[in-house]
Amino acid sequence: MLGAALQLSAACALVAHALFQLRRLTRIQAALASAEEEARFAMDERRAERAGRVKAEREPLLVPAARARLTLRPEMSGAYFEGLQEYSHCWVLYVFHENTDLQRLWQEEPYAGVPAKIRVPRLDGGKMGVYATRSPHRPCPIGLSVAQVLAVEGHTLVLGGADIVDGSPVLDIKPYVPFCDSVPAAAAPPWVAMRAEDEPLSIGSLRISPAAEAELRTAWWRRGQRSLFGGFDDFRLLIEEVLSRDIRSVTQRIKVPQRAQQGGPAALHSSGGGGGAAPQRQAQAGQEEQQQAGDSQGEGYWKVVLDGVEISYDVEECSRDVLVRTARAVPTD
Amino acid sequence: MLGAALQLSAACALVAHALFQLRRLTRIQAALASAEEEARFAMDERRAERAGRVKAEREPLLVPAARARLTLRPEMSGAYFEGLQEYSHCWVLYVFHENTDLQRLWQEEPYAGVPAKIRVPRLDGGKMGVYATRSPHRPCPIGLSVAQVLAVEGHTLVLGGADIVDGSPVLDIKPYVPFCDSVPAAAAPPWVAMRAEDEPLSIGSLRISPAAEAELRTAWWRRGQRSLFGGFDDFRLLIEEVLSRDIRSVTQRIKVPQRAQQGGPAALHSSGGGGGAAPQRQAQAGQEEQQQAGDSQGEGYWKVVLDGVEISYDVEECSRDVLVRTARAVPTD
Repeated sequence: MLGAALQLSAACALVAHALFQLRRLTRIQAALASAEEEARFAMDERRAERAGRVKAEREPLLVPAARARLTLRPEMSGAYFEGLQEYSHCWVLYVFHENTDLQRLWQEEPYAGVPAKIRVPRLDGGKMGVYATRSPHRPCPIGLSVAQVLAVEGHTLVLGGADIVDGSPVLDIKPYVPFCDSVPAAAAPPWVAMRAEDEPLSIGSLRISPAAEAELRTAWWRRGQRSLFGGFDDFRLLIEEVLSRDIRSVTQRIKVPQRAQQGGPAALHSSGGGGGAAPQRQAQAGQEEQQQAGDSQGEGYWKVVLDGVEISYDVEECSRDVLVRTARAVPTD
Repeated sequence: MLGAALQLSAACALVAHALFQLRRLTRIQAALASAEEEARFAMDERRAERAGRVKAEREPLLVPAARARLTLRPEMSGAYFEGLQEYSHCWVLYVFHENTDLQRLWQEEPYAGVPAKIRVPRLDGGKMGVYATRSPHRPCPIGLSVAQVLAVEGHTLVLGGADIVDGSPVLDIKPYVPFCDSVPAAAAPPWVAMRAEDEPLSIGSLRISPAAEAELRTAWWRRGQRSLFGGFDDFRLLIEEVLSRDIRSVTQRIKVPQRAQQGGPAALHSSGGGGGAAPQRQAQAGQEEQQQAGDSQGEGYWKVVLDGVEISYDVEECSRDVLVRTARAVPTD
């Protein structure tokens, strides 16, 4: 019935509970091996797994170099995808399965884990109602991203520009239908429509040191067949696209430098880069304490993992220049 | 991690199971009384409840007159919506809770209830892979619709143009962010981009008989405060927008007239109108037999319920002219 009365409902709590079980379920899926890799990596490196997330709320159009492979379950026919290759874009509905607040969300009363208002990176920490944002931290942790349809190869859909974390459980794929989905005249508030150079996430310049460039090349080569990219240049473009925005969380960006001033240079060493307002993770109050545990190897202040390569970089807080310092392949078996 | 490897996964089966439980849960929510109304109505009227669904896959922009009220659970703060009124549009993620195949979906093996390919109304029954369509009949029955943000009033969000069935459990609301969500240059296959006058769903003309006009007015007046419309003219506009497309399912549209020719005029009397390729219901093979049970009161061949008013109409199969014949308020307590 059109003219409907709806309710934002108990549905969320139930789905959240299901997603918790689902999360365990996905752990045993072969295609999600990288999630296990990451967990193992985390144990070795003391919370370095936080480096694996990338802020993504505005990335579908900003990081076209991103690549993803989406695979149907083996018992499903490839015919489910038939005709999808005729569209240029599709929607991916997925679960924010690595949210730090996910456990809280379903272990406590419904909604107890998700405050009504959250800090918004573009407002430099100013707060907005959850439903006025694309934050992954919401009562029902379902993500929605547009991606390019690059190819359908049997059970596999190859996507471009998808701002989705590795191993995310995918719920649905829908074709992008321009006359239904594209509303170019749609209005958003000024803080959303802000020009890139005026907003707090802009980066002055991006440099990759010669040493890091060589390490990136070696690390990417070690990935071999596991890389989602056909050549090093494509992979390097991804790094440039991702790091040309400030991908740290609001708390990391604002609070860590302040403490560094009080506590001396050591406090600057954090392995929490990229974990903040990430697509699937946001630094919670208190957690950034842990993140400030110094990186004893002095490899860099912030880290991000892209296509299985861990990249360390500095952000100069005044000029907002970024320097990529080191790179290495994430250890696997 | 960008450049992610994903899997369209076991998630679906688990979410489907949760949605089944959720469906029962929503039954006891006060805001969903209309769903119960509909069920009661169904018992009285022998499957007339099928009339309550409206084909919607291309309606968000085609039926701007549609109205919906979305209410937060009472224990949730209105602050969840804060800032949402600054956007012109938002996404609604909801459950296709009235799909006829929902029971099958979670009672049998995952995906057993959802064929890999489905009949597409715009292809006049031609088949496409489920993930190349916006069909509500998919492994994970989650709907995605864009709607106008008309107002935020405390716990209530007032929406325009939402092609969502009454009582749908809503999972999430996300703001429409033009620079992320609008891809005007996105390409869709010819059968999707087909001009309205060339496709099988076009309607020749729409007429409302003088008797039906009077009945519509009376029925809408009886709805009183329960109507989602501020005046009769707004409600009448909705009827025109909805009926200016053929909202019957492929099977109803193609097969019923064929049988009518064989079986005489009585077979034309069907109370299943609007149920077919509806947003939340599609005629399954075999089910249309039941739908062809004649309407003994001879009120009209097809029915649709809009804003609590049941409307009967004829479709002249050659000219594709539509005539609205009768209207009445859906009985409630």
